[in-house]
Amino acid sequence: MEDSRILLIDCPDSQGLIAVISGILFQYGLNIISNREFVDKESDHFFMRTQFTGVFEESRVVNDLKQALPERANIRLIRNSKKNIVILATKEHHCLSDLLIRHNFNELNGNIKAVISNYDNLRELTNKFNIPYYCVSHENTSREEHEQELLKLLQQFNPDMVVLAKYMRILSPDFVKHFPGKIINIHHSFLPAFIGANPYRKAFARGVKIIGATAHFVNNDLDEGPIIAQSIIPVDHTHTVIDMTQAGREIERQVLAKSLKLALEDRIFVSGNKTIIFD
Amino acid sequence: MEDSRILLIDCPDSQGLIAVISGILFQYGLNIISNREFVDKESDHFFMRTQFTGVFEESRVVNDLKQALPERANIRLIRNSKKNIVILATKEHHCLSDLLIRHNFNELNGNIKAVISNYDNLRELTNKFNIPYYCVSHENTSREEHEQELLKLLQQFNPDMVVLAKYMRILSPDFVKHFPGKIINIHHSFLPAFIGANPYRKAFARGVKIIGATAHFVNNDLDEGPIIAQSIIPVDHTHTVIDMTQAGREIERQVLAKSLKLALEDRIFVSGNKTIIFD
Amino acid sequence: MEDSRILLIDCPDSQGLIAVISGILFQYGLNIISNREFVDKESDHFFMRTQFTGVFEESRVVNDLKQALPERANIRLIRNSKKNIVILATKEHHCLSDLLIRHNFNELNGNIKAVISNYDNLRELTNKFNIPYYCVSHENTSREEHEQELLKLLQQFNPDMVVLAKYMRILSPDFVKHFPGKIINIHHSFLPAFIGANPYRKAFARGVKIIGATAHFVNNDLDEGPIIAQSIIPVDHTHTVIDMTQAGREIERQVLAKSLKLALEDRIFVSGNKTIIFD
Amino acid sequence: MEDSRILLIDCPDSQGLIAVISGILFQYGLNIISNREFVDKESDHFFMRTQFTGVFEESRVVNDLKQALPERANIRLIRNSKKNIVILATKEHHCLSDLLIRHNFNELNGNIKAVISNYDNLRELTNKFNIPYYCVSHENTSREEHEQELLKLLQQFNPDMVVLAKYMRILSPDFVKHFPGKIINIHHSFLPAFIGANPYRKAFARGVKIIGATAHFVNNDLDEGPIIAQSIIPVDHTHTVIDMTQAGREIERQVLAKSLKLALEDRIFVSGNKTIIFD
Repeated sequence: MEDSRILLIDCPDSQGLIAVISGILFQYGLNIISNREFVDKESDHFFMRTQFTGVFEESRVVNDLKQALPERANIRLIRNSKKNIVILATKEHHCLSDLLIRHNFNELNGNIKAVISNYDNLRELTNKFNIPYYCVSHENTSREEHEQELLKLLQQFNPDMVVLAKYMRILSPDFVKHFPGKIINIHHSFLPAFIGANPYRKAFARGVKIIGATAHFVNNDLDEGPIIAQSIIPVDHTHTVIDMTQAGREIERQVLAKSLKLALEDRIFVSGNKTIIFD
Repeated sequence: MEDSRILLIDCPDSQGLIAVISGILFQYGLNIISNREFVDKESDHFFMRTQFTGVFEESRVVNDLKQALPERANIRLIRNSKKNIVILATKEHHCLSDLLIRHNFNELNGNIKAVISNYDNLRELTNKFNIPYYCVSHENTSREEHEQELLKLLQQFNPDMVVLAKYMRILSPDFVKHFPGKIINIHHSFLPAFIGANPYRKAFARGVKIIGATAHFVNNDLDEGPIIAQSIIPVDHTHTVIDMTQAGREIERQVLAKSLKLALEDRIFVSGNKTIIFD
Repeated sequence: MEDSRILLIDCPDSQGLIAVISGILFQYGLNIISNREFVDKESDHFFMRTQFTGVFEESRVVNDLKQALPERANIRLIRNSKKNIVILATKEHHCLSDLLIRHNFNELNGNIKAVISNYDNLRELTNKFNIPYYCVSHENTSREEHEQELLKLLQQFNPDMVVLAKYMRILSPDFVKHFPGKIINIHHSFLPAFIGANPYRKAFARGVKIIGATAHFVNNDLDEGPIIAQSIIPVDHTHTVIDMTQAGREIERQVLAKSLKLALEDRIFVSGNKTIIFD
Repeated sequence: MEDSRILLIDCPDSQGLIAVISGILFQYGLNIISNREFVDKESDHFFMRTQFTGVFEESRVVNDLKQALPERANIRLIRNSKKNIVILATKEHHCLSDLLIRHNFNELNGNIKAVISNYDNLRELTNKFNIPYYCVSHENTSREEHEQELLKLLQQFNPDMVVLAKYMRILSPDFVKHFPGKIINIHHSFLPAFIGANPYRKAFARGVKIIGATAHFVNNDLDEGPIIAQSIIPVDHTHTVIDMTQAGREIERQVLAKSLKLALEDRIFVSGNKTIIFD
């Protein structure tokens, strides 16, 4: 599959889009490996992800597609190259550990360039895997200054994805706008239940019988971004808040890893506040 | 198991409760089949459910327990007799159908005495199973009058359990207080997400990747009563609101049936706004 | 969607199949609603299911497809008409009940023409729903004679699908060959574990922590046909064989209903001994 | 909970066992935190796990229990001390990685004393976490000699638990008998389906829609020991053997970690070829 390409197209829906797109690929002798498409009826918008192999002149294919598709079509032709990832964490290790292990064994379709935390206590873990670790403390500084420092550091790595692996601080809209569609967060509840702080405490207080975890893109509104994946785990009356927190970690890391994989393999379109996932 | 009894005890926690209770049962030559207990650390309250067999004089055992346990202990000794059930429904059949089928084949540990709806369209179904059907329309009448009519009808059946099998009207606190701990509702969301009307529409709008159903006891606050059971089903971007509604029905009826079974088998204690379930 | 059509195509894989097929549909002004395809790499075979709307002359479209596709291509153009179903059962009601209820409320994309059992005890249930019930006893008759009688009866209804809803007798290859790809069975285990009789007894003896149910097409070999869907439910050391049997029923009926829905909506291709499912 | 003790009792069933045991604990002023018991009806054997706190003279309590219980009762009083673990692995890292991470953050109720593999390629990983790594190659040696070498090494660590974290060689009965009830294996299938080698290849060939993982104690017969935990993950026709292998790893490590936790917390009784789990 080394020489496979991914073609991502979205545009206003109209008749014959599949015929047009697959026709152009055929005409260049390209071989479709997999193909998924979807029309969002609410916005009447068409989304397509095609993986194909073959030798071709990239600019000619894209040009032909541009000619044939509606003017407002987004056309992205992706070489299956690894994306650059920066991870933000706070104190909890489980999501970070999981990603570091996967990275170490070449199981992530991406490169972790750095880990940044507002505390120092995940440094030892991170260093075991020879990844640079930066502590940008939020203490004795304003939120704005802290974010400025974060931003400056992040931009050095030119990240394709910023992963909030239990990063426990809220990022301002001003910060987020620098990384549109590039920040993935793991929230430790089954959103939209228990938005905000201390979801396990709230889940315990409400007496739920299932707890969840949600990975989502980050936009301006707290815990309101497009959901990528969710998972759940049953609990019962014997679970304390601590038990729930521990049980929840098992699904947090699993949901985050799954979502990151989908993003790194270019399987996610964002449509309004929803995701379209071709898995 | 015909002659088995269930002993339900709850009282402020103190040392030796299990020894005292199991000692009294042993002394009467009774044989414990199963035994579950739990201490709610928040309220420091003890809960115990014991199923046992043997021949004994009921009043003497209960009296000995009363003597030995704290003054405020609740002691219930239950013959495994079938409880009386009245089902309230509106227009959707799936939860009602499921319960009627189970009842028809003697799989419910209870007797459905009547089905009451604010519409007439489930009459034919109900009558197939020889269960009385009452239509108490909410049209051309005030909420108070409608509930008064409902109440009068319900009280004729002296129900041990009132099951809201997709009954789509809110019951007032005045109504609910006549059936404390006896009303089970199925809500078509993963509570506390999407409280109130149209949860599938809200779930669709939010773009969740999992939908849920929640069975709970009904108290004064809408969708806020103690949760008995929850279940979920995955959805994706291809699901319309109608698809979600259909998918959700599969878990609604399953969660309601499971919760009703737990209630009919006296496996649920309510502690504050939570349930303790010995399944 | 009333006027939507489903186009099912499978043929040896070659380049450009999607372009060719979608091109022909486009040329006739037809509008693709959904489209799924898959290449089975083991057999190098291409499978495609396309749902579309539009007004067209059926024979011309099919003819054009025949001309354009490889000689051995299977092309089926399906009007979304309801299929005829005959259900075979024995004594257990739960799968039959479930299908009768769905049929009664017009939730099955098919018509149940008859229920046939080797016992009489599901007659009352079936008759509630005004479906003809036939008891074809296997007693005092040879297996061959019994199957001959079954076959004669079944053929009267010209079924598109024969559903074994906990039909507890093995059907001979001679019988099965009359309904190629048309018989769906529900087996009460997680196949290939516990093939054959008494799977719950075997599951209990093995001490498994999860039990399952499997719906599959029936071919010559017992419980060896292509699997359509599977589901599981957790069990533990407290489950007796009876408890497992009861728990298993919840997933048996769910898996059978789901599989039948997939078949009735023409979402299943069989490839060798596997299914390709476009859900 | 530092000073909590766990009392494990199993004996032939008789009336009054709970009363006797809880009575003795009460008499010594001990406070029961949790209590679970079960009677295996097949063997008419009683199992009980009690966690309690309090100050007491251990030998006196055990002696009183011995006096009061049937002669053949097994009585184990466990200080909640950490058990010694040795992990055996081969080439795959995912289960080992998971346990090393948990150990590193003090989340395992046990001490990993060593990792032993028949290959050298997990040394770097293991050394990151400062755990001794031993490569005991199986090449150029007989099975007997290899196991002798393994045994000698293992016995140096006097392990309470030997964890086969994807150790891909079969251990002989002679080897296993040195560690009765102490070896946990993770098998990459939903046992008893796909016993033996290459379960994912077999699952792919059979066309299953769900794959599983099973953690079990190891006894003389391959993949036949008492099952501790199982988990599953859905697959479909798009999954290759490699995809199934990767998907399966997610549940393998989760099931192994869960089972090891149960064992380390003394929550498992073995009864014949089954486990009784008080979780």
